[in-house]
Amino acid sequence: MGRIVGVGLGPGDPQLVTVRAQRWLSQARQVAYFRKSGRPGRARRIALTWLAPQAVEHAMEYPVTTELPFDSPAYIDLLARFYDHWVERLEALAAQNDVVVLCEGDPFFYGSFMHLYERLRRRGHVPVEVVPGLPGMVGCWSVCGQPMTWGDDVLTILMGTLPEDDLVRHMQQADALVVMKVGRHLGRVRRALQRAGLLARAWLVQEGTMNGQQVQPLASVDEQASCPYFALVLVPGQGRRPEVEG
Amino acid sequence: MGRIVGVGLGPGDPQLVTVRAQRWLSQARQVAYFRKSGRPGRARRIALTWLAPQAVEHAMEYPVTTELPFDSPAYIDLLARFYDHWVERLEALAAQNDVVVLCEGDPFFYGSFMHLYERLRRRGHVPVEVVPGLPGMVGCWSVCGQPMTWGDDVLTILMGTLPEDDLVRHMQQADALVVMKVGRHLGRVRRALQRAGLLARAWLVQEGTMNGQQVQPLASVDEQASCPYFALVLVPGQGRRPEVEG
Repeated sequence: MGRIVGVGLGPGDPQLVTVRAQRWLSQARQVAYFRKSGRPGRARRIALTWLAPQAVEHAMEYPVTTELPFDSPAYIDLLARFYDHWVERLEALAAQNDVVVLCEGDPFFYGSFMHLYERLRRRGHVPVEVVPGLPGMVGCWSVCGQPMTWGDDVLTILMGTLPEDDLVRHMQQADALVVMKVGRHLGRVRRALQRAGLLARAWLVQEGTMNGQQVQPLASVDEQASCPYFALVLVPGQGRRPEVEG
Repeated sequence: MGRIVGVGLGPGDPQLVTVRAQRWLSQARQVAYFRKSGRPGRARRIALTWLAPQAVEHAMEYPVTTELPFDSPAYIDLLARFYDHWVERLEALAAQNDVVVLCEGDPFFYGSFMHLYERLRRRGHVPVEVVPGLPGMVGCWSVCGQPMTWGDDVLTILMGTLPEDDLVRHMQQADALVVMKVGRHLGRVRRALQRAGLLARAWLVQEGTMNGQQVQPLASVDEQASCPYFALVLVPGQGRRPEVEG
């Protein structure tokens, strides 16, 4: 009887997985990962450096969504049944060996794995664990070369999917900011930063820590520019620093 | 001519360093780390698992602070001179070999290394780099067994050193919370959470991922209890979830 283990893979560079994650990956006999239909899967791409050739792979393909809005009851119901289905599959697979579920970033930080985790824990048939990973934002501020938070700085993490007024309100309260899931919301995020007086301090990081990485001051990026879903916007804090006040 | 590299060591468990950090540590010929006078140093303790026996160690001991408040101009001046001194020392050491600066958590997330980094970059004598690490909070929410942020949840990270009214105001705006540097501010943090209606959802994590780890619902902890400086309070988010709304 095996376990189901959600393993965090970090921001993208395979060298940024933890030593513990690397060990789970190299010994895994069964791995599962989420991906969009027809795509190779981002988590799998990070893990390939470490997976043994004999690992059996299980792609958990999200239901196709072109016709349903993400927040419609019909889509939410579809997703719930998708997670229910995979919970039963993973439990069956764990009867043989441990199953490693590949998770981008950290499994508990805006991760799809959490939907499996909560169900598995509630059912209680199979032990479920997590191995934490470096969140994508940490990799991004590292390659940006900008210390992110100082002293008593308040850091707020926002989703680019929020309405513009909500973004502005939160931006005005924080000393340092991360905006995730920017993608097609780039124009709105940019306008919200401008309204909050933060555009000049904002950076756009695309494909952080990976091939094709781009780091740009957001003010220099065209409002109409296309931008991948996993791009991040960072506004580093400016808190208490001895060299400024001393 | 070497480099100066701030290497993030993660939350405390040596298995939670990244593969890249592990390689830097095992090959380091010179390491430097901050510590309080007379203490072994927390960063060094994490790194010891990986350091080679021949690595030469340089302890950067914070100036003694019993007589000066942390935010007094005199203390801030003392700290600035301490950082200036070590910047020159590290530059001199880097003339021989790379110098690895050991950093708890992530170097750019509320880290002392940032004070060295900004000075070194401004002077431009020696190349300076960072290797990101798992922030302590990620290790803490992992051992807490609580998925932290869902869907569009807004996550805010606060320091327990902030005034109570500021804490309450930020707590009321967020969907999920991390309060760092709790320590002797535990009573105030607890009161702020109560005022914000969040005490029942709050967890206290002490020594997360290390020997002596404690995870408790904060409501069950006495307001007068002693608490280490690096304890964290977590309030997991409750955002959009298919199983709830579907």
